[in-house]
Amino acid sequence: VSEERDGLVIVYTGDGKGKTTAALGIVVRALGRRLPVAVVQFVKGQRKTGEGLFAEGLAGLDFRTLGEGFTNRGPSPEVHAAAARAGWEEARELVSAGRHRVVVLDELTYVLNYGWVELAEVLAVLAARPRATTVVVTGRNAPQGLVDAADLVTEMRCVKHPYMRGVPALPGVDL
Amino acid sequence: VSEERDGLVIVYTGDGKGKTTAALGIVVRALGRRLPVAVVQFVKGQRKTGEGLFAEGLAGLDFRTLGEGFTNRGPSPEVHAAAARAGWEEARELVSAGRHRVVVLDELTYVLNYGWVELAEVLAVLAARPRATTVVVTGRNAPQGLVDAADLVTEMRCVKHPYMRGVPALPGVDL
Repeated sequence: VSEERDGLVIVYTGDGKGKTTAALGIVVRALGRRLPVAVVQFVKGQRKTGEGLFAEGLAGLDFRTLGEGFTNRGPSPEVHAAAARAGWEEARELVSAGRHRVVVLDELTYVLNYGWVELAEVLAVLAARPRATTVVVTGRNAPQGLVDAADLVTEMRCVKHPYMRGVPALPGVDL
Repeated sequence: VSEERDGLVIVYTGDGKGKTTAALGIVVRALGRRLPVAVVQFVKGQRKTGEGLFAEGLAGLDFRTLGEGFTNRGPSPEVHAAAARAGWEEARELVSAGRHRVVVLDELTYVLNYGWVELAEVLAVLAARPRATTVVVTGRNAPQGLVDAADLVTEMRCVKHPYMRGVPALPGVDL
């Protein structure tokens, strides 16, 4: 695909399942069209996910898992904050450099909502990005300023969830 | 992954973007864990999508595009109905055979809502499927009976969409 159309800012938010997976679907579409893609997963921790395993060695995909994971037994808030800041510095460089046509910032909203990165800083980076770059942000409770700045916003609303009846996450589906 | 957990019936519905892409994200997760996956795309027509291009030659993924596409200038309702029926027969075989751990029935709800396939027939096939098989159904206006039968239902709610301001679909992102 040689045509250079303006990219979009896409936000997948809400309490339902499907935010990260929808971002991964865009990754698949872009890779299918041989467009370079970067994925930054904030706060997923170091556990291997299905998508991380899939990404290993896949041409055209720069996949990075950052953060320290969300767990009650996990590291201190200071460690989370430092990891989130470092992740954002990487993400900012990826968004600004224009090497990728799609950059996914998975669960960036948590980083914003915890106050680890300033919304104004993120909005400035999005506004100044190369025109052809599409950025996909996922996570619950997207800040209103991010919604306002986005071209496409979908709220994933939880209608029914197996966790409600005690079914644990299923490898290959949920992670 | 050798552990055989019970699969889920997952429904992604609603008027927002992200239903098909969320299903594709599950595909990525499953493939990352080396689980065999089948995708049946109903009513997308024969135009090449990013996901279809990506799927070509990908090990472990059985990707099928069925139907005649949704277009005002398209074929007659009878042609649509026959294509949908034929697609459902393939899908039924895939779900029932147990060769795949994840089977995506993309936009099956349209086929149901147009009355081309009976809901009761689909529910019977889902109920009788091999236990380890996860089935993901996407499309707007999921029938209540399907929601009732599902383990996980997310409604993708459109908050903001660039089509609203006349931006056409973007290859590598929307298709």
